Amino acid sequence: MSESGNVDRAEGSRSRALAELRELLGDRLSTAPSVREHHGRDESYHPAHPPDAVAFPESTREVASSVEICARHRCPVIPFGGGTSLEGGVAALEGGVSLDLSGLDRILEIHPDDLDCRVEAGVTRGRLNRAAGDHGLFFPIDPGADTATLGGMAATRASGTNAVRYGTLRENVLGLTAVLADGQVIRTGGRARKSAAGYDLTRLLVGSEGTLGVITEVQLRLHGLPEAIATAVCPFEDLDGAVRTAIEIIQWGVPVARMELLDEVQIEATNRYSDRRDPLRPTLFFEFHGSPSAVAEQVATVARLAGEHGGLDWRSSDDPAERAALWHARHHAYWAALALRPGAKGWPTDVCVPISRLAECIAETRLDIESEGVTAPILGHVGDGNFHLVFVVDPEDPGEMDRARRVNERMVARALAMGGTCTGEHGVGYGKIDSLEAEHGSGVEVMRRIKEALDPDGILNPGKVLRR
Amino acid sequence: MSESGNVDRAEGSRSRALAELRELLGDRLSTAPSVREHHGRDESYHPAHPPDAVAFPESTREVASSVEICARHRCPVIPFGGGTSLEGGVAALEGGVSLDLSGLDRILEIHPDDLDCRVEAGVTRGRLNRAAGDHGLFFPIDPGADTATLGGMAATRASGTNAVRYGTLRENVLGLTAVLADGQVIRTGGRARKSAAGYDLTRLLVGSEGTLGVITEVQLRLHGLPEAIATAVCPFEDLDGAVRTAIEIIQWGVPVARMELLDEVQIEATNRYSDRRDPLRPTLFFEFHGSPSAVAEQVATVARLAGEHGGLDWRSSDDPAERAALWHARHHAYWAALALRPGAKGWPTDVCVPISRLAECIAETRLDIESEGVTAPILGHVGDGNFHLVFVVDPEDPGEMDRARRVNERMVARALAMGGTCTGEHGVGYGKIDSLEAEHGSGVEVMRRIKEALDPDGILNPGKVLRR
Repeated sequence: MSESGNVDRAEGSRSRALAELRELLGDRLSTAPSVREHHGRDESYHPAHPPDAVAFPESTREVASSVEICARHRCPVIPFGGGTSLEGGVAALEGGVSLDLSGLDRILEIHPDDLDCRVEAGVTRGRLNRAAGDHGLFFPIDPGADTATLGGMAATRASGTNAVRYGTLRENVLGLTAVLADGQVIRTGGRARKSAAGYDLTRLLVGSEGTLGVITEVQLRLHGLPEAIATAVCPFEDLDGAVRTAIEIIQWGVPVARMELLDEVQIEATNRYSDRRDPLRPTLFFEFHGSPSAVAEQVATVARLAGEHGGLDWRSSDDPAERAALWHARHHAYWAALALRPGAKGWPTDVCVPISRLAECIAETRLDIESEGVTAPILGHVGDGNFHLVFVVDPEDPGEMDRARRVNERMVARALAMGGTCTGEHGVGYGKIDSLEAEHGSGVEVMRRIKEALDPDGILNPGKVLRR
Repeated sequence: MSESGNVDRAEGSRSRALAELRELLGDRLSTAPSVREHHGRDESYHPAHPPDAVAFPESTREVASSVEICARHRCPVIPFGGGTSLEGGVAALEGGVSLDLSGLDRILEIHPDDLDCRVEAGVTRGRLNRAAGDHGLFFPIDPGADTATLGGMAATRASGTNAVRYGTLRENVLGLTAVLADGQVIRTGGRARKSAAGYDLTRLLVGSEGTLGVITEVQLRLHGLPEAIATAVCPFEDLDGAVRTAIEIIQWGVPVARMELLDEVQIEATNRYSDRRDPLRPTLFFEFHGSPSAVAEQVATVARLAGEHGGLDWRSSDDPAERAALWHARHHAYWAALALRPGAKGWPTDVCVPISRLAECIAETRLDIESEGVTAPILGHVGDGNFHLVFVVDPEDPGEMDRARRVNERMVARALAMGGTCTGEHGVGYGKIDSLEAEHGSGVEVMRRIKEALDPDGILNPGKVLRR
């Protein structure tokens, strides 16, 4: 058969899929250009790849029926949570149907006695935290975007500012409900704190970025709201002193709840954007959780360590308003960076290294940014050895994009040479497939065998994580 | 071809495999009956299923060559660590070659600054802890047996007394080196604290019990030795009060390092075996880690909670000798239980439930044990919601074995009905395959597809986790 015959047949099949989906979902299937455009784009510089249609299911059963229809017609299915991914995870590279899971928005169970809950995939972390707060509990994983959904966070193995103390999504998930590539629904894990019962399908799906299954429900651990909370801010003589302080805090085993680095470029951006007056120095933002005496002990230890490494002006506080302002500024760091250059786009990237190599990795990356002459604030979850650049770029300027690409490639190579990873928390999407191959070599072939076993027709988020 | 022709061909192929292995390993391949018998049996009541031969490789490369030889001849490969498994994990159900990994015994790297290490699979946890201790560090996972190997602990997702604070093997593994079913070597994970780079092959292999790959190296997190340590012992009026104390401690967020329940039957056994004089009451053993003030705060909080729930005689101590005696007694609980009835065998089993259901689950199980008239002390890592029975049985007495089996089946069914798991830490082996199917239903079919993708000929530890 000719190639165009194949294409015709594929298009015919795809329109039959859309017709069946319309029968299932009625006007909860949209082909409006603005809706498609919105669902083909994430928060980064990656160009939009709109799907052919966007489906708005409202239950696991509707997701299962939708996937089953798409499977019969070999139509790609791209799960869509809050659209806050950064490596092109939601792009419909081969068209197909974007499954917008925001209608799966029920908080199904909160068990205060067991410190766990079950929510549908479209529930945002902000909403879960408001509900958990009524029971004196919270869900610690905080990637910054309050509109990130818990399904999306599970699919990308999200992390963020609290991971240094509470772990990532991986450590805080107990189980999942997922729809497989043929429309079958499985429940993984359970409510027990630990289990030795068979393969860890939960953690196989966590971080698989929608390529192995569509996550529709998430069973999560919750934590008691701390009795006391304090924050602190400390500017440093230089970047090295700030990073060395962070390293020693980890090595001393101080259980800081958050420990965030912002370099002087990011501080300048954040001062402007969030109306702060922090000195233009590399700065650490801290948060401490515990009993009042434990918090006081942590604050004293960290203040001492900062002083030993060129900390210039240690300011701690237990004022909730000051705390809110601090983390608001940190969470808006990305938008602050973009505002450095109106009209520019953000290209966020991240790596994670063993903490003993962090100072060196950041310093070499800083030099590389300067010698290439690109704008790229550095910030990060330094307690984990994880840091970010945000390239503030004009995607229409090929020279500038090349310079950013070189800085990024060298940073990834540097992190891998130090025993680190090409992405601590942003994921692979289609932006970091080369880096994944550089990092895992023959392991990528094993990932591909698993993908083929679970999704033989390759309909689930094609072109993400693994090359087509 | 006749069936006997098939068998002849399989046997011819298997003896060719052994000949090639002998060429590779020389006298590090043994077919001596005593060696085979030892490698076909674990620490439980499961009968020995000796392999055809036992190989003693001394490097990842030799493991890879051995597996490659076995793969060509479709000869089963059963990884063997310390032989301390409890659900028949090392049994050579279809014959084949037991790969004894004790010769992979190098501690390859300890990075005190990064709190991590890399060791070969045959290194025991006792040895790692002695080496880590020189750097002021320790590896917290403690399943009880000092002779358990870290490769075996990874393969079975080991847990134990410290998991309530430090997590299980799953949370403390950074990466693995493993030999796949065709002899290919892969490295998974890395040294970064967290990563969003692709599928979590590390945690897919952890707990796969040698059915997806042979783990030859383990990259692990280490923790700083606590500045202060205290222990405490408290007998209770009744089982319910002890369990309710444990539940409240978790709900209050007290970071106890260990919290172990022993019922009065187990206390009697332990008193005799370890020469202790604990009152014959349900009893909690505790350990606390932290700064001196944090430990004092934890001890005071827990003593108060115990007093509110019928705690009779709270005794805390910071004497290292007393601590050593306490945990020696706890770690020998299994042998103490067996000594209740000389000549009997132990059938240990465990479940794990959401902690709010723990008191009810233990109480109903206790009643069931009494009404069936079997001997079965209860003990457990109650902070995780995990508890164990040890049936002290005569495997030659079918009536007694039936009664134990009924108690076990009802306990698993009870745990599953409460949202728990059929095994918190012992694993599936071939003893709990029915329970795994009851727990995970269609998820087991997904596990099977992964198994077939990675080990299409089914040579890796056949008959374990998944039914043949």
